Formats: sequence, C-alpha cells, structure tokens
Amino acid sequence: MALEDRVLELAAEIPPPDESAAEEARRRHVGLAKPPGSLGRLEELGARLAGMAAECPPPVPENPAVVVCAGDHGVLERGVSPWPQAVTAAMVENFCDGRAAVNAIARTVGARVSVLDVGVVDELDDHPLLRAAKVRRGTDDLSRRPTMSRDEAARAVMAGAWVVEELVESGAVDLLVTGDMGIGNTTPAACLVTTFTGRPPEETTGRGTGIDDETFELKVSVVEEALDLHAPDPSDPLEVLAQVGGLEHAALVGVILAGAVYGVPVVLDGVVSNSAALVAGALVPHSAGYLVAGHRSAEPGARIALEHLELEPLLDLDLRLGEGTGGLLAVPLVQAAARTLSEMATLKELGFG
Amino acid sequence: MALEDRVLELAAEIPPPDESAAEEARRRHVGLAKPPGSLGRLEELGARLAGMAAECPPPVPENPAVVVCAGDHGVLERGVSPWPQAVTAAMVENFCDGRAAVNAIARTVGARVSVLDVGVVDELDDHPLLRAAKVRRGTDDLSRRPTMSRDEAARAVMAGAWVVEELVESGAVDLLVTGDMGIGNTTPAACLVTTFTGRPPEETTGRGTGIDDETFELKVSVVEEALDLHAPDPSDPLEVLAQVGGLEHAALVGVILAGAVYGVPVVLDGVVSNSAALVAGALVPHSAGYLVAGHRSAEPGARIALEHLELEPLLDLDLRLGEGTGGLLAVPLVQAAARTLSEMATLKELGFG
Repeated sequence: MALEDRVLELAAEIPPPDESAAEEARRRHVGLAKPPGSLGRLEELGARLAGMAAECPPPVPENPAVVVCAGDHGVLERGVSPWPQAVTAAMVENFCDGRAAVNAIARTVGARVSVLDVGVVDELDDHPLLRAAKVRRGTDDLSRRPTMSRDEAARAVMAGAWVVEELVESGAVDLLVTGDMGIGNTTPAACLVTTFTGRPPEETTGRGTGIDDETFELKVSVVEEALDLHAPDPSDPLEVLAQVGGLEHAALVGVILAGAVYGVPVVLDGVVSNSAALVAGALVPHSAGYLVAGHRSAEPGARIALEHLELEPLLDLDLRLGEGTGGLLAVPLVQAAARTLSEMATLKELGFG
Repeated sequence: MALEDRVLELAAEIPPPDESAAEEARRRHVGLAKPPGSLGRLEELGARLAGMAAECPPPVPENPAVVVCAGDHGVLERGVSPWPQAVTAAMVENFCDGRAAVNAIARTVGARVSVLDVGVVDELDDHPLLRAAKVRRGTDDLSRRPTMSRDEAARAVMAGAWVVEELVESGAVDLLVTGDMGIGNTTPAACLVTTFTGRPPEETTGRGTGIDDETFELKVSVVEEALDLHAPDPSDPLEVLAQVGGLEHAALVGVILAGAVYGVPVVLDGVVSNSAALVAGALVPHSAGYLVAGHRSAEPGARIALEHLELEPLLDLDLRLGEGTGGLLAVPLVQAAARTLSEMATLKELGFG
C-alpha cells in the first residue's frame, strides 16, 4: 500500500467523539457534591474527555507522554531566524540528556519524553529516548520549491503515527502531548496557518524565538513568496504539507491522527502543533474533537489556529518555547477534569440530593 | 503571652523576600538553553520563588499540602445562601472520606489534604486528616454584632499557623495551598475585601455557590449593613477579623503568615483565601511576597483582592468552588517554575553561549 493510502486509512479510522457520553458527563456534573458549574471550564473539559473515550466517566489518564518531533528547514537559508541550524541537533541531544525545559516540565507532571527525528540535518547518536525515523535531512526552502515530496510528507505523518501506536499499544501511555523542535519551524507553521485559515501572513507570522523588526518583515515576505509560489490548496492537505510544511509538522499530524484513532486525548502545545492540528482537521474535521488546547501561545499564528479549530486554550502564560512545554503544563488540568468526574461523591450520597 | 501578641510575634518574624536571589534567577534565565523570555510568566514566577527561598535556584517543592480551613457563619440566618449550614460539616466529612473535588485534585497533583476545623457548628468525628481546633461553634451574625471576640480571632489565626508549623517542621510539606469550607463564607469575604481595598460592596460581593438576583441584592445589603454597623478600621486587622471575619478566614491568615515565616510559597485559591491574604497584607505588607495567586476566580471579590495585592493569577478557568481546588491546580506551574531554573542546561553548556 502506498504511504499516502496508509495516511488516508488512518484518517478514516477516527470515529467522531461520542456526544452521548459527553452529555452524560454534563448531567453527572450537575449531581456532584459542589455547586453546579463551580468547576468552571474543567466541567466542559471533562465532558469532552468522556466524548473522546466514548465512556462516562472517562478514564483518568495516568501516563502522559510528550512526543517531540524534530526536523530542520531549508528556509533557514533565507535568514528567518537568528539561531544556527546546529541548535536543532544540539537541543535533541539536550532532550535525550534530560536537561531541556521539556524534560524539567515532563518530570513535574510525570510524563515520559519521546523524541522523534523525522528530519534533523545532523547525524544523531542512538539514544533510548530517541526514535530515529529520518525521512530526509531537512526540508527544501519553501520559498523556492516544495519542501519535500508528497511521499516524504506521508512518510513523516506515518512516523508520527507509529510512535503513538507503539506508546499506546504497549499500554504505557494514555495521554499525548505534542512537541516540536526545529530551528526555523515557525515559518512553515505560518504558511500552514494562512493556508487553512485564510488569514494573511502578516497576522499568522510570529517572532518565533524572538526576532527584530527587520527579520520579522523578511519572514512575512518569505511566507508571502512561498504562498504565491505554491498557491497551496487546503482541500489537499498532504500536498500542502509537501509544498510548505516541515517534517516535524507532518509527524505531528500523524501523532494527532493516531491519538484520535485510539480515543486518547492529544494536548496541543504552540504554533507548530496547532498548525499541524489544522492539517489534521483538514483531513478529518472531527479529529479536533480529540484535541485539548494546552495554552495560548504568545505566537499569533497559534491563537489563530485554535480559533479556527474552535478550541479554547487552558493556560495563558505567554509561553513561546515549543518543545511541548505548554502542552505538558496543561496535563494536570486534563487529569483533574477526568478525576473529578470519576472520584467525587454526589450530593445525593451526602444527603442533599 | 496573650494570643494577640503571638500573632504579632509571628507577623514580625517574616523577612522580606530576598530581592537579590530573585534578581539572580532573572539573570540565570537569560542563559538557559531557550530563547530569553520564552518561558513567559514561569520565568518571573521562578524569580519570585527564589526570593521567597532566599536562594537561587530555589528548591523544587515536591511536597505540597492544601490546608482546608472550615467554619460556620451566623450571617447565614440572613438568607445569604441557598445551602443549609449542615453542608459545612457534611463536606468536611466528605474531605476526610477523600471524595470531594479538593481530594480528586490533590491526588492529581500529589498534594496532601489537611482539614482544620476552627469553627464548624456541628460536632465532627475524629479523623486522621482532620485537625480539631474549634475556636467556637460558628460566628455571630456580622450584620448585627461582631462575629467573634478579638481573642477568638487571634486563636483562629494561631490555629492556622500551628497546622503549618506542624506540616513544615516535620519536613513533610514545602508548598502550601489555602483552602476553605463554610456555607456563607463569601459574605464575610466581601466585608474584608471592601474594608481593605475600599471598593464598594456591590463590586466585592459575588454570587458564591450561585444565587439568584434577589438573594444577591440581599447579600450586598447585608454587607453594607455590617460595614455601617462596625465601620471596620483597616489599620487594625485583628479587630476587622473580629468584627466581620469568619473563623476560617482568620485561620487562613495564620496559614499565610506561618508559610511566609518559613519561606514556603503559599498558593492562594479563591475569594475566601484572597480576602485572608488582604488581612495578612495589612498586618505585614511584605507577606504578599510569599503568595502565588493560583487562579482568577469567577468571584469578583477575589479579583479585586488580587489586584490590591498586585498578584497576577496563574490560571483563569472560571472556577468558583473553593476548598483549595483552584490553588491546587496551579501547583504544577509553581513546581515547573522552580524546576526549570534548577534542571535546565545553559546555552553555554550546549556550545552556543
């Protein structure tokens, strides 16, 4: 079977979230030992988790994992970031050493870290945390040619899906967080956000790791050039990935689709994750039903993508690091939403029903 | 020594947070392996934690505890809440049974639950989680007479402080969360918020567990009557507690002061906690330096109190349950802020410094 068909097969396996389980959770919340509605946004989150699991109360996710997808970007040669490409590989090694922000936060919330190399330019040493699935050594420059072939895009999607399959089927993981690493990867993210939301590049482009006004203007014009060159068609999401996407963006599409197939909640991090969620949503609109927006990133494209997906972020801490950090920080909120539905007494049990 | 002197002694022991440790943390963040500022609000939170601990990096708090202070309120006879007074005792029992929202969320974040009875009307059975320190069986109606004597207020403050002393000195706890239970307790909270912020009762009074317009108008007028009757003087915080406070509000003042004495961060929950923080701040202005605002409660008085204390809440989830739930949900953010400062590699170590 061609890889592209595998992607479509994966997408077709995603059931719509179970609205009756979600409705049952909403009813259940009214009878729990608290004033109705007093758990605020956790209540609707709990209902959504019931919908994802097709079960009320939903299982309490005890074993979160962040999947950090890494790749490099040909567009870096246009000068869109002040950071050298070698930082991508150095940070992947840092993830494996357990000394990055994502590791510190993963330890805080009891999550495992899984790193997926789908496209880092440099050779990487083997490591137990690293899944090596390099599709190619970085993408081509999206402002001059397609970033990759359609088949390569499909391979990267499936690499993300297979990591999830392994994590979930082994029983080790019941909650996923999307993470990313790739110097230059907010430029393809802006291209994806504009393609799928129709909002102009000057709105969807952000300052990424922190760039000056001049670099920002250049970055916007690079995004505009890329979209003029490829005129990406949002109704062909795989082709859009191949034209302007990054390898880690494609892998994250696979993480999202596979998570949804298993009914496992997928907590989104920032703009790279959210741009991948737009691709997944274009393939399967109801895939967004399995997503939890971890936080409102400082990156404007991240916010635009979430609005388009109709996902309200849980945290708003001005984070713009990526790696999965903001998604991980929201994990306890997801767990609490499930746990309150499962473990609280009812008013009736206390004699006040 | 009179109890009131014990309170003043406790208050006098609080050192100002160490600004040089906080400054060192800010400098440290610039060199860590991430774009400067990319951890957003976690960075300044980490700096504040360094100031509280007078140490950079600050210790990572691994052992959180929520102290849920419980009491009843004479003002309930004015009809300010639709819930019967018996719910206070029933919920305390529910906390001990581990089946309330606070328990479910405490389990999620690995916190212990400690319940302090400083003023529940009903007799409560002994339980390992319950610290019995009943100062009196509920307060008097604040709209008609002082809620308690000045000595009773001091006793309740010290009861809160002693729970913290026990938890922290045993080495079992290094991070505190304030929690409350008491049907009717948002009415004294509104009185405290108006007294210490000067904002009018119609702004500081909220709908608590969820009341209709008619009850809300009654509640505002009860708060107005109380403030007219007592004309509380914010420069005498213990007298204010004795005039319009609740026993659990007073105990929470003790929790906050004692936490600050030990340099342990105290994460605030909602309006009852925040009103107690105003009392603590009136006793010792720099006590607010040890506080972390867990969340922006749906209760308007909670927001007004935090603005007065110049504390920016971490979460904004429309919670209005109390019990410590919103404070507990912020615990992982506090831990992550400390952990990233401690455990991340520097750019220099990765060869990019």
